[in-house]
Formats: sequence, C-alpha cells, structure tokens
Amino acid sequence: MRRNIITAPVRKVGEDFAVSEQDLLAVEEPLEIRIGGRVAAVTMRTPGDDRELAAGFLFTEGILERAGQIAGIAETARNVVEVTLASEAAVDLSRLERHFYVSSSCGVCGKASIEAVYALGCIAPPRGEPSVDASVVRALPAKLRSTQAVFERTGGLHAAGLFDAAGELLAVREDVGRHNAVDKLIGAEFLAGRTPLHGRILMVSGRTSFELVQKALVAGVPMLAAVGAPSSLAVELALRFGMTLAGFVRDGRFNLYSGEARVH
Amino acid sequence: MRRNIITAPVRKVGEDFAVSEQDLLAVEEPLEIRIGGRVAAVTMRTPGDDRELAAGFLFTEGILERAGQIAGIAETARNVVEVTLASEAAVDLSRLERHFYVSSSCGVCGKASIEAVYALGCIAPPRGEPSVDASVVRALPAKLRSTQAVFERTGGLHAAGLFDAAGELLAVREDVGRHNAVDKLIGAEFLAGRTPLHGRILMVSGRTSFELVQKALVAGVPMLAAVGAPSSLAVELALRFGMTLAGFVRDGRFNLYSGEARVH
Repeated sequence: MRRNIITAPVRKVGEDFAVSEQDLLAVEEPLEIRIGGRVAAVTMRTPGDDRELAAGFLFTEGILERAGQIAGIAETARNVVEVTLASEAAVDLSRLERHFYVSSSCGVCGKASIEAVYALGCIAPPRGEPSVDASVVRALPAKLRSTQAVFERTGGLHAAGLFDAAGELLAVREDVGRHNAVDKLIGAEFLAGRTPLHGRILMVSGRTSFELVQKALVAGVPMLAAVGAPSSLAVELALRFGMTLAGFVRDGRFNLYSGEARVH
Repeated sequence: MRRNIITAPVRKVGEDFAVSEQDLLAVEEPLEIRIGGRVAAVTMRTPGDDRELAAGFLFTEGILERAGQIAGIAETARNVVEVTLASEAAVDLSRLERHFYVSSSCGVCGKASIEAVYALGCIAPPRGEPSVDASVVRALPAKLRSTQAVFERTGGLHAAGLFDAAGELLAVREDVGRHNAVDKLIGAEFLAGRTPLHGRILMVSGRTSFELVQKALVAGVPMLAAVGAPSSLAVELALRFGMTLAGFVRDGRFNLYSGEARVH
C-alpha cells in the first residue's frame, strides 16, 4: 500500500516555547493519467485509489461516458495509470483542452462556461428526489469528519463523502486536491456501474467552485453540500440544472443556494 | 470597476429557524490569458487585477522572465487579457504544457517535479535574509485578515499578502483561487520591476501545495507562510531551495518545516 501520510521533522514555535518534533504531512505526488496511449492529464494528488481517480477524472471531464468503454485500467508504472479502451470505444480527447472555459458566441464569460456543461450532455437530476430532512443535512459534517480520524491529523487533506437521503455514509475519499477527492469518489461509483448518482448527497470539506458543481452534475448528483462557501458561478450552474446546493454546512446549520425543494 | 462580490438569495436553516435572506457571494468567472496572439490559459478567477494576474501567471509558470519582455498588456474583451511582446522577446509557450509534472529520466515522481523547477531557472533565495522575529510571524494572520473586512463576509476568497521582514503589510490580493491570489500579488511586483522578492515574506490564507512553493521560488520569495498545512512535496521543494516554509500560522503559533535559520 502506498503511503498517503509521511512523518517529517518540524519546529513548533509559540509565544513561550519552541520544540523540534516529528509531525505528519499529507503526501502530494504527480499522477499521470493515460488513455488510449496518450497522456490525458498530470494531476498533483495524494497516492491511493489512483485507478478510481483516473476513471473519475475522465468521466467528470466528459471523456468517458460509461464504464463499458474501458477494457482495462492499471498502474503501468509508478505514478502512471493507463486506461485501455474497448475496441469499439471512440473518445474525444480534445475535450481535455478545457473547452468548458473558452470563447463561445457570447465571448468568455460564466454563461459560456455553463453552456459548455450542457454541451457535455449533462441533464438536470430528477426533481424532488431525494427528499432530505434538514436534520440529515446538519449531521453530515460530523459524519464526514468521523471517518477522517487519521488523515485529520495532517490538516492537509480534503474529503469528499457520498451519503444516501437518510444521511448514511456510503463512501469517502481524501486527497490534497479537492477535485481529486471528488474524482476518486465518483470514479469508484462509475467503475461499479452505479452512476448516475440519483438519490445521493455529495458532501465536500472545502468550498464549492464551478468545477466541483460540473463534476457532480456529470455524475448525476442531485445535491451537493459543502462545509465552505460557494462561488457565484457554482450557484449559477446549480440553479440552471436544478441541483440542490448547500454551503456553510457546519455548527448545526447550513445555507441553501439552489434546489430548496429537496430539503424539508 | 468590475464586481468581485454579488448578492444572492439564500435560505438559512438551523435547528430552530429557516429564513430567506440576501447574502454575499464571491464572484467566479473565467479569464482568458493571451500572449503573442495565442491563448496561454483560461483560469477561473475573481474579477479584478486581471492584468497583474496575467503577468504573474506567465512569470511564475516560466513563460516570461522580466517585465521588459512585455510591450503592452490590456483587457481586449470582457474576461480576456492580451499580453503583447516586445519585438525582441522570445518566449517558449511549450512550457505551458506543464513540463513540471511530466515524465523525466526518473519517471513520474516528486523528484522529477522538483528537477523541473530547477529547469525553470530557479535559484535558492539568499541565505539568512530576511532575519525575522518569531513574534512577527505570529502576527501575520491578524494583519492579513484585517485587510479582508469586506471579502471575509463571503467566506469564499483566498488571500495572499506580501510583508517585509518587520511584518509590515506591503500588498494583498484576493481570489476564489489560491494560486490566482498569489499570481495577482506577484504579477504586480513583477510589472513594477520589484522581483526577485528577496527580503519579503509571502503569506497565504490556505494550505501550501507544490504549485504555490514553485510560484514563490520563481519570484525569489525567501519565506512562505500559510494558515494551513503544507503537503509533503511543498516541504521537499522548500528544503531543496532553502526557502523558509511556515505552516499552521494561527492562534499565536506556527510550525517551521524548512529554512529555520531565518526565524529567531
């Protein structure tokens, strides 16, 4: 098993002390994701669940649509994951050039970014499903944190958790990169044939950006909850697709920015 | 002036209340950075200081080496900044393909990523300079936060501040993206001809990744301080270049992971 935490010497300094100790650091290393013999991306990630990360990345970025397109997925060298395609699979690697963000008829703007998510084939998650009790939402952060017993000590890892509508934790993944934690989580579901993730709640430990909402939408997640704040474009994208977006989910309360109807 | 905060309707829910209010969101929009007529990158950022962001990005990613290479820098369309080059300037756009992270003779690994920073031409900041009192380090977060009076209300912005060795705040920039806040700050110094930033302290509000240490090294920053945790590779890179790296700078204390000699 690859290490996701290492110890390192650290000098701890306070007003009336200065001591040298060993402390824990979250591991960050590059991962090269290859598909069909080509490099699709290199991401800085915490080792572990690398095949799920590769699959999740290729899925949420719109390169892969279903697990059946994959013939094999293997770590072919240290920090290299290679996805081989089923013979009939045709994938469009040009999507990796991040068309999401570039110019369109309306220029470079948030609207163009949102239109690009439609172009990925995203559709709105089913309305009114799941129906979630507010007390379930308020309890999510403690449940996510309880799984982080070891990782939390480094203070350096983001977490992403998948919950059902009753608030039961189904899966959790961690990474130095928030988007990687989400890709690892979604990738595992994708490979198991459990996408779209209708009826599920995705909870992340940090803030919510446009990119995270996009990844959740591609996976069919109807509700995204975050400990931190959402950005303006994250809210706009959630509103456009009718996704429920909760922010500042902490200290027994939360804010709803979109899709209130799923929470009662 | 472009808006960096907008108001949005939000439903606030707690154990014994549920109210609808207007709240503040940090704005996130794409910015297309062009150089010599080509698209160098599209980044999701908070509008404001866009020319500094473009210059800082091109500098810290190793495309530009000095401000004199720039003939002009202007917002040529909404969310588009165009850098025109002085006639004699030769730039290598292939560096944008992120050679930092890809395979080298040792494969894909942290060591290769660190070697790539050497290949950018980075050198170690001067030893023993600046000499910083521990009380100065402990006071940094409060000074950074005091400048965030408005932005802090959104909870959605990262801050990067530049300090001198006595702890005086020289400049601060904010953004939904941590790397963008750093690029805006460094870009302003780069355009003003004040790089390398020897003798300065760079403080960031979040965690420290490899990417942030790399950007600081390119700018000649001898000391990087962060409210959050560093990753393993951030510490390795700082150690290799003798940069002082402080983490968990909060609540009147901090941890030193590298370059202790500058702090007394």
